[in-house]
Amino acid sequence: MTATASRPLLLTQGDPAGIGPELTLKAWLQRKEARLPPFAILTDPVFLTRVAETFGWDVPIQSVAPEEAVSVFDTALPVIPLLANVSANSGKPDPSNARSIIESIETAVTLVRNGAGAAVVTNPIAKHVLYQAGFTHPGHTEFLASLASDGGDTPHPVMMLWSETLAVVPVTVHIPLASVPMALTTDLIVRTGRIVARDLRSRFGIAHPRLALAGLNPHAGENGTMGREDDDIVAPAIAALRAEGIEATGPLPADTMFHARARSRYDAALAMYHDQALIPIKTIAFDDAVNVTLGLPFVRTSPDHGTAFDIAGKGLARPDSLMAALGLAAHLSAGAHER
Amino acid sequence: MTATASRPLLLTQGDPAGIGPELTLKAWLQRKEARLPPFAILTDPVFLTRVAETFGWDVPIQSVAPEEAVSVFDTALPVIPLLANVSANSGKPDPSNARSIIESIETAVTLVRNGAGAAVVTNPIAKHVLYQAGFTHPGHTEFLASLASDGGDTPHPVMMLWSETLAVVPVTVHIPLASVPMALTTDLIVRTGRIVARDLRSRFGIAHPRLALAGLNPHAGENGTMGREDDDIVAPAIAALRAEGIEATGPLPADTMFHARARSRYDAALAMYHDQALIPIKTIAFDDAVNVTLGLPFVRTSPDHGTAFDIAGKGLARPDSLMAALGLAAHLSAGAHER
Repeated sequence: MTATASRPLLLTQGDPAGIGPELTLKAWLQRKEARLPPFAILTDPVFLTRVAETFGWDVPIQSVAPEEAVSVFDTALPVIPLLANVSANSGKPDPSNARSIIESIETAVTLVRNGAGAAVVTNPIAKHVLYQAGFTHPGHTEFLASLASDGGDTPHPVMMLWSETLAVVPVTVHIPLASVPMALTTDLIVRTGRIVARDLRSRFGIAHPRLALAGLNPHAGENGTMGREDDDIVAPAIAALRAEGIEATGPLPADTMFHARARSRYDAALAMYHDQALIPIKTIAFDDAVNVTLGLPFVRTSPDHGTAFDIAGKGLARPDSLMAALGLAAHLSAGAHER
Repeated sequence: MTATASRPLLLTQGDPAGIGPELTLKAWLQRKEARLPPFAILTDPVFLTRVAETFGWDVPIQSVAPEEAVSVFDTALPVIPLLANVSANSGKPDPSNARSIIESIETAVTLVRNGAGAAVVTNPIAKHVLYQAGFTHPGHTEFLASLASDGGDTPHPVMMLWSETLAVVPVTVHIPLASVPMALTTDLIVRTGRIVARDLRSRFGIAHPRLALAGLNPHAGENGTMGREDDDIVAPAIAALRAEGIEATGPLPADTMFHARARSRYDAALAMYHDQALIPIKTIAFDDAVNVTLGLPFVRTSPDHGTAFDIAGKGLARPDSLMAALGLAAHLSAGAHER
């Protein structure tokens, strides 16, 4: 992976009471050994300086304009200041920080879309804190998609969990298991598969991406004897994707498609629901899986964990996933273009 | 693992047109390197001799009574002959073999229950072949449970998938995903957890077994915001198990409970449905996972694969799982007792 040294990655603040600030400091401290691409964080420099002091970590903080971030990065952690001030106690989320959390995301997207940043990397937020301050989007990803709508159609964002050895995409996401069979439609699978195939080509540089689709039911329904959805919903979606020239296979029995030999046969697996996708990747790549949002007109990655308020401020959280998210964002944006 | 050298493991024939016969021969050929416990197979010795000749493998076949099997095992593959003759073409299942398939299972169970064998290890069968011959049980495991009923209550058989690094138990098994939420009851989870805890103690020799229970919904329902079942069905089951003195934890988010650090916190994971259990174990232990039936009055293991008619007779199938099943059966029966 190589960085686009001309433009920094733009890292959002996330919830300042969560583990985002300390992970950001830890990542910068490891920038040389880990060969991290240059990044700048959008937050209140006074707040972040205080966090570094609390831990006793030697992280010089420097306020910069976006175009200064890359040259500063070697000797100081570049901060692009927000209008909002931040005051937070670790582990104690406070709705009064919603303004800075949202401003950080909005400004990062604007800067990246204007060409002042290479990609957006987001620190974790807690939806319930933002809801108390009037936030109305179902989640982080949907908010980013709305920022990309430009007053027209909102793009369909697709969550991919990526690691060096496995990439998975859940077709349905944060809904009860009982709602999955009704939510799953041929059209949703086709739209998702199309976006995955397109972004594997344009962002990941895979000329002929291979998609493997899991069946919904045990043994992919075993010829309709354990549920009809695999024959009636999933199989037609695969046929439609293939008719568009996309190499899609399945529906495959989900239990036998994630071991090492099976993984070598595809570039991304499409799972029909949350745990079917997240169980295999978190089983084999718990610390360094990265969340990538496909389908947006810019590159966005994030660590594959939450705010972890329970351990925030203790210095215990591991920056592996954030560092992997920075690395992947640099890789994807190196070949990225607006579409 | 040590073998009970006094009594052989009794290996059933399985479907003679599947990969069972060749795996049995391969396992015997590797008995020394793999330090396999002595086993005898219940089949037609003329048929098995022919299979060995077809492959050109040097496996002397010797018909034995059960008590002779252990001493013969070193120099020949001991076969306990059936009344039924067997004639099969690899890859071409034939309902006329149903008699020998069923006789092999029935005789193995009788011999083990009479003390002439240490445990039952089953080669794979294909239900649809047996159905054509009038077999009425839903599957292999239920048939074994019915053989253990002794005219009284049929035991509740519980499927565990076991490997050196992870053991999982699906609470519901071969049903459509859409049927899982309705099929899942507090009572079913409690009964399953009780059997798992009891057999981990009595068979596996774990004095204080630790059970980890997965939630049904993403993030275990996230406090009821993604489905009520984890609060209303799973959590009460865990409370009931704990009230009985069983160390049960959960409901845990299923995606974060199967990585290496998480696995060290429990002895067996109870999953709420088929793929939730089988995805993690087949992802990390595809070749050597073993199917163990808990809740029976005898030890039964089997390889974690099917008849594989598509590759039968080609010598391609790997005996890893069958050998692991033999090893585990010997280990479990070494400390086993009738209950």
